[in-house]
Amino acid sequence: MIAAHDALDQRDRWVPPSAGSVPLDRVAGMGWHALTDLMPPVLVLKDGALRHNLDVMARFCRAHGVSLAPHGKTTMSPQLVARQLEAGAWGVTAASPAQARLFRAFAVSPIVIANQVVDPLGLDWMAGELERHPEAPVLCLVDSDRAVGLMDEALAGRGPLPVLVEMGLAGGRTGCRSVEEGRRVAAAVRRSRSLWLAGVECFEGVVHDPEQVDGVLGETRALCEALAREGAFDELDEVLVTAGGSAHFDRVVHHLAGGWELGRPARVVLRSGCYLTHDHGDYERLSPFGGRLPEWEPLRQAMEVWGLVHSRPEPDLAIVGFGKRDVSYDLGLPRPLHVSSRDGRRRDAEGMEVFRLNDQHAYVRVPPGDDLAVGDLLGCGLSHPCTVFDKWRSIPVVDDGDRVIGAIRTYF
Amino acid sequence: MIAAHDALDQRDRWVPPSAGSVPLDRVAGMGWHALTDLMPPVLVLKDGALRHNLDVMARFCRAHGVSLAPHGKTTMSPQLVARQLEAGAWGVTAASPAQARLFRAFAVSPIVIANQVVDPLGLDWMAGELERHPEAPVLCLVDSDRAVGLMDEALAGRGPLPVLVEMGLAGGRTGCRSVEEGRRVAAAVRRSRSLWLAGVECFEGVVHDPEQVDGVLGETRALCEALAREGAFDELDEVLVTAGGSAHFDRVVHHLAGGWELGRPARVVLRSGCYLTHDHGDYERLSPFGGRLPEWEPLRQAMEVWGLVHSRPEPDLAIVGFGKRDVSYDLGLPRPLHVSSRDGRRRDAEGMEVFRLNDQHAYVRVPPGDDLAVGDLLGCGLSHPCTVFDKWRSIPVVDDGDRVIGAIRTYF
Repeated sequence: MIAAHDALDQRDRWVPPSAGSVPLDRVAGMGWHALTDLMPPVLVLKDGALRHNLDVMARFCRAHGVSLAPHGKTTMSPQLVARQLEAGAWGVTAASPAQARLFRAFAVSPIVIANQVVDPLGLDWMAGELERHPEAPVLCLVDSDRAVGLMDEALAGRGPLPVLVEMGLAGGRTGCRSVEEGRRVAAAVRRSRSLWLAGVECFEGVVHDPEQVDGVLGETRALCEALAREGAFDELDEVLVTAGGSAHFDRVVHHLAGGWELGRPARVVLRSGCYLTHDHGDYERLSPFGGRLPEWEPLRQAMEVWGLVHSRPEPDLAIVGFGKRDVSYDLGLPRPLHVSSRDGRRRDAEGMEVFRLNDQHAYVRVPPGDDLAVGDLLGCGLSHPCTVFDKWRSIPVVDDGDRVIGAIRTYF
Repeated sequence: MIAAHDALDQRDRWVPPSAGSVPLDRVAGMGWHALTDLMPPVLVLKDGALRHNLDVMARFCRAHGVSLAPHGKTTMSPQLVARQLEAGAWGVTAASPAQARLFRAFAVSPIVIANQVVDPLGLDWMAGELERHPEAPVLCLVDSDRAVGLMDEALAGRGPLPVLVEMGLAGGRTGCRSVEEGRRVAAAVRRSRSLWLAGVECFEGVVHDPEQVDGVLGETRALCEALAREGAFDELDEVLVTAGGSAHFDRVVHHLAGGWELGRPARVVLRSGCYLTHDHGDYERLSPFGGRLPEWEPLRQAMEVWGLVHSRPEPDLAIVGFGKRDVSYDLGLPRPLHVSSRDGRRRDAEGMEVFRLNDQHAYVRVPPGDDLAVGDLLGCGLSHPCTVFDKWRSIPVVDDGDRVIGAIRTYF
């Protein structure tokens, strides 16, 4: 399904200086070690953790009878999406027509665009995809009459495109603020000549207050049931119901998996994206696995960055060679984990703290007496995978010994 | 000097769905309008502002007899670096050997790596470049004896590579904390068999307190003079003295341009990067042009992002289709400037404010009664160009009417 035709070229910053262009599928054979054969800073994806996380999420979805359309925006990597599909994912989620186009170029189907699409170019692409591949749906959201009107106008009779009515919550992001509003938007969809109503959607991940999370999920269910009672789904084989980031999918399953009486099956689709790599920050704290779901093994962190200590200008300060161009900083700074010395010794980065980032530098507070030295490599965990992936064009995949066993590309 | 061979491919998110691959040098002929022919969100570079800023900075450097090696890390775009060189820049600055390698692939020389380089791969590349192109120097910094030792060890007699001793300040980033320390490091360089001392460096931009800025620049001058007195530059044709981001280059010129008595010319090199695009945030506030230098015209903002209004879920809230994946947020959020309606009308985005970003969404507070509508485009100014460029693989260059007259690529 995924073409592995991409070459890493000489401009991929982590490729060894001497390597020149290396086809993606030949990286594994290069015999590289991430810490000695690649120019720092190096971001690595740990294969063992990826496998574990793919497996846990696939088993969770099977156990609850829900489908998975992992949010592709997290990684924007066809190679990682391919692994998610191989592990049993039903489809993929995208944030925009441009992202959907990338995944479609790698033959992914179905695709849920978890957004309103009102730009004429995006709609033209979606209509064209429907004409070229009627068997491979691309869905999107609507949350207003005006959006329905703009879509109708732009599509001018092409389609009809499948859409989901989005449920939101007061003080939240997009989405209808009440079941009543959702019903009005659904009615507008049903009147339009270019759209058809495929189900309902919400994204509960914009809030973290449990009552609000439960509230929007409950409203989403209520909207779906109200629409079914109105006959809005009478012509459907199945009704699509989708929600779920990587923080509250246990609540999504609680509210939406099962118990439906719609006169036809409900396909409940989780859209979690960050479960794949997990993290050393927000998702470590928020993930249901191992926490609110103690019967499930915790996810494992698949992502680490290694940077070189450039300078030890003051006794308690180290300046390390990664920065805002290399790592996430929106939901917490990198967390020092390991030190690898020039002689290959590895130890814990105990007591160290990244307290500031410049574009290309990290400021690390070092405990008194620690012999962290210029030339050492500092390995750090990261928070929020989405804003790490978008900083790299290609990322090596490593085994437990940090040997490079493959690579993925990103397409931002 | 710069090869314009790069094709924009179908995975460049702003390319129209129908366009497929478009060679970079054919973008101008496509007849695209940024607001109607490209998938939103769209980041644009305004050609008129780029020209103005290139011209102002070039004139400033000529007027003060200083050279310019603009920091290429800002844009990581060979096409923009080419314009800086055409406008008279002496060379380019890079943050790492990997960045230097990119610029060298586009035949740029000289290159100042404004960092310590102690990784064996980076040093191997630098030594190789010196062997392949002895006429095209790549310089880097040193701020410790240990760094000199590691470089000597890794180079194993290759070279010698030209290095600059870095001056820093207490509580700052890298760099020697005193003239005395700088002299010790310089002495280590002079003893090494793989390095030669080409001059001194500091980066005053890590601090914004005027006394600290003046302090580190004064120390840099003092170090250079002390080294000259010791005979450290006796074999040089010219001594390189470099400093200067985009916030304090007036102070750099005040302290370092002219008045040298080194027995040979001093080449004073500014390394400003952000002057090229300027911004609607930190650099608008900090730029000396038009502020502390009232005799010079202010720079013009060359960068704007346009996003589509997806949703108006509450009377004072608009959700717009750009987010952390598209714009900077580290030194201030995007600033709404213009609204372009579906019918092409344009107006000021008066009273609107971006108050939150998610990965792919902006939350915009809208004044009471404002008719900003789903389907409108919101144009915003941005703060901190560096963390905008790193989010795009290619960026259209537009004329004053937002017609696309070219494009640049970035290589992060």
